[in-house]
Amino acid sequence: MSHKDQPWFKREGLALLTDLYELTMCAGQLGEGRADRRVSFNYFFRSLPPNSGFAVTAGLDPFLDYLENLRFTEDDIAYLRSLNMFKEEFLDYLKSFRPEVNVSAIAEGSLVFPYEPIVQVEGTILETQLNETALLNIMNYQTLIATKAARIYLAANGEPIMEFGLRRAHGPDGGVSGARAAYIGGCSATSNVLAGAVYGIPVAGTHAHSWVMSFGSELEAFRAFGRQFPKRCVMLVDTYDTIKSGVPNAIAAFKEMHAQGNFVRPAIRLDSGDLAKLSKEAYALMRSAGFDDPMIVASNELNEDLIADLKRQGAKINAWGVGTQLITSADCPALGGVYKLVSILDNGEWTPRVKVSSNVEKATDPARKQVLRYYGADGAPLGDVMYQMEEGWPEMGPILGRKRNQPYRTSRLEGAVRSEPLLETVMENGKRLRATEAVADIRTRALAQMAAFPEEFKRLRNPEIYKVMLSDSLGELKERLLANPEEF
Amino acid sequence: MSHKDQPWFKREGLALLTDLYELTMCAGQLGEGRADRRVSFNYFFRSLPPNSGFAVTAGLDPFLDYLENLRFTEDDIAYLRSLNMFKEEFLDYLKSFRPEVNVSAIAEGSLVFPYEPIVQVEGTILETQLNETALLNIMNYQTLIATKAARIYLAANGEPIMEFGLRRAHGPDGGVSGARAAYIGGCSATSNVLAGAVYGIPVAGTHAHSWVMSFGSELEAFRAFGRQFPKRCVMLVDTYDTIKSGVPNAIAAFKEMHAQGNFVRPAIRLDSGDLAKLSKEAYALMRSAGFDDPMIVASNELNEDLIADLKRQGAKINAWGVGTQLITSADCPALGGVYKLVSILDNGEWTPRVKVSSNVEKATDPARKQVLRYYGADGAPLGDVMYQMEEGWPEMGPILGRKRNQPYRTSRLEGAVRSEPLLETVMENGKRLRATEAVADIRTRALAQMAAFPEEFKRLRNPEIYKVMLSDSLGELKERLLANPEEF
Repeated sequence: MSHKDQPWFKREGLALLTDLYELTMCAGQLGEGRADRRVSFNYFFRSLPPNSGFAVTAGLDPFLDYLENLRFTEDDIAYLRSLNMFKEEFLDYLKSFRPEVNVSAIAEGSLVFPYEPIVQVEGTILETQLNETALLNIMNYQTLIATKAARIYLAANGEPIMEFGLRRAHGPDGGVSGARAAYIGGCSATSNVLAGAVYGIPVAGTHAHSWVMSFGSELEAFRAFGRQFPKRCVMLVDTYDTIKSGVPNAIAAFKEMHAQGNFVRPAIRLDSGDLAKLSKEAYALMRSAGFDDPMIVASNELNEDLIADLKRQGAKINAWGVGTQLITSADCPALGGVYKLVSILDNGEWTPRVKVSSNVEKATDPARKQVLRYYGADGAPLGDVMYQMEEGWPEMGPILGRKRNQPYRTSRLEGAVRSEPLLETVMENGKRLRATEAVADIRTRALAQMAAFPEEFKRLRNPEIYKVMLSDSLGELKERLLANPEEF
Repeated sequence: MSHKDQPWFKREGLALLTDLYELTMCAGQLGEGRADRRVSFNYFFRSLPPNSGFAVTAGLDPFLDYLENLRFTEDDIAYLRSLNMFKEEFLDYLKSFRPEVNVSAIAEGSLVFPYEPIVQVEGTILETQLNETALLNIMNYQTLIATKAARIYLAANGEPIMEFGLRRAHGPDGGVSGARAAYIGGCSATSNVLAGAVYGIPVAGTHAHSWVMSFGSELEAFRAFGRQFPKRCVMLVDTYDTIKSGVPNAIAAFKEMHAQGNFVRPAIRLDSGDLAKLSKEAYALMRSAGFDDPMIVASNELNEDLIADLKRQGAKINAWGVGTQLITSADCPALGGVYKLVSILDNGEWTPRVKVSSNVEKATDPARKQVLRYYGADGAPLGDVMYQMEEGWPEMGPILGRKRNQPYRTSRLEGAVRSEPLLETVMENGKRLRATEAVADIRTRALAQMAAFPEEFKRLRNPEIYKVMLSDSLGELKERLLANPEEF
């Protein structure tokens, strides 16, 4: 059995990965004779992580894996029975339960924005409710980490980024799922071997301080490492004293290798101290030793801000190892994505619903949707417009719509020459319509979209706000529903 | 197969859950003919989460599960071969690899402090190195979350806390491992049904806004919920307007149930708005309706500080649902625990090692260790002392030692009447010496230790620093090694 076929990574056996209230609501709907009512739910988030101009969506394929494999085992049923909360009628229902939902979604690796329906799930109230928690759990985390990785990718400006976060990730799967998302967002490799095996992500890494400490001397440790990995060895130079001991010993070891005819690229890693100053000093020493193009890897609590600042100070670093700050998205460790009911099928007709709030910004956007992305003559995205799925939409030209948080006010996009519907149907009646995408292809999509978006949305601080508006008809509907949310 | 016997929860199949450099170092040691040298590693952290006076250790049993099941499958070997980095000699070694390590550890659920060896692993350099990343991954996360939960437990002052974080946890296992740790730290229940099934944690939860929205009116939704769950129903009252609509409708529904002879306890949940103000208004309305002891659950971005402040303002809340802030430890989403070489067996003799650092605080404490906790006449802990495992230690009386960050300076504990060694051997030659502990028993230990520690270490802001010192002999050794770290 290959790694990616293991039950966990196929998201099998996770029927109970849900908040209890999803089950009580499902049991309640069944008890009320309402379990077969068809509804539509949207997954979206309300705000981007701080200072981000966009998010990179990730986690769709693992969520579809979960849906395809969603069934209640005998053990699941026995456990639920032991809670003394559920009637046998409901447990019987679960025994033969198979989700037959329709799912449309924005492709993984796409740039997405607040309030856009990233995943739209339709089916009976029971089956759509049952997957809520797992959808949120999988998509929130992976989208969060892909977004953080994208910021680090922008800061590193084309230089390779290695994801080193496994030891600080939130448990084993936090590390593996996180490595997947980090790669999608722009990392070039991971230290996490299991993520490499499961998702085909390139793996990277050399040695730790303990390697050096286990030898009689630092030079002896470097010599031994060069002997064992003659094709690629990065010497960690800060076990004792980076400039007085580590770099000179690494230079000596590489010189010996070169003298023996092995012209491996001299490479060191700095893991403590002032990375700007030390990298410049190390670079000067290595250049003086006759090494034209040394590789200098830096690690130690790096994030996009520190990378950008080290570059500003002219640090001589050309590869970046990023761990804790990436794998936990340390400055914003959760994406607040939610899953909200947007429409109910009543007597054969879809009836849009809205959840009001004392804060109008938080009110949901009603109706089953399609999202169109419009592009200008220069090929760059101009803005996104949410439409009711049933309405038509112009493919180009000036687009007149409404502001989503003030639906009584108009808004417009000018100069669109091309458009693209973002939501595509990926599952029908519980069956996937396409094969699992290779993670490398999803990453390629993310990098291409990042390249296509204008600079103003990619600034690391205070980016411009990308325009997302409602179609005129959706805006009108929302305005009407907010005035009387219980009219339906 | 019961839930806890599933491969993932037994931490099977995780041999590749490691940073690549652990494998390159192992291959290197084997290539250098040094793989069988015996060494001792310590797992410890250098600093507590901000404002914490202590940490609660968690994750030991899952780590021991991982160790017991650690073996490389044919697929693992095939993947490693495909990397073109490793010699067949090393891959052969892995094929028959079984860890035969000795592990001593501080019991899960114990209060622990910076620099204390929480887990001490001994064995060959190869087997001790191979488990580093998994140990850090499992222990860092669970200890982080148990510690956060303990702070929330202290703030809630005996009132029940429900862990609701699954939808914002870092992937499926982040949710399940996190629920385990949150329960150990003092939560009383989780919404996560899978965590309930795997670890026997009580589960809790009622309904969401979508339940209300799927009915024609809020009152109809509450009536239906009461019909379906007549024994325990908590009505979520903030879908439309908490005070004008939600609470009056909940009161009406409960009155109807009481009139029908079902005297279920009236219970509501507030999930938005000003929780202090709304809870007082809701409480007044429910009391006026003749309900003597209403249950008012609050949720929405709660953490220990907000709970403490809501209590200070007299909020009428008697149960707490805590999600994102707990399951991600949002103000500190990683514990920086590390795993450091402390001794090498050389010609039959343990030879302590130290890793120096430009920051003396970060220098490691050498030698295989035991930690003694000393108690005063009032039964409260006075301080902990790290000893070399080979030395003797006094069981009471004044203890003279050294400061760990200034080992040339003396330190002392006065008035100890009793002591307890904290590290116990839990695995010998790769075999567990005791059965897996019930998570409820680990939780009981954590709550008992929290009760025993004096108030000054349990303050939520600016707590006192608990004393952890080195024995005189360990301090003298550290002083000598720091002066000449490469003498061995």
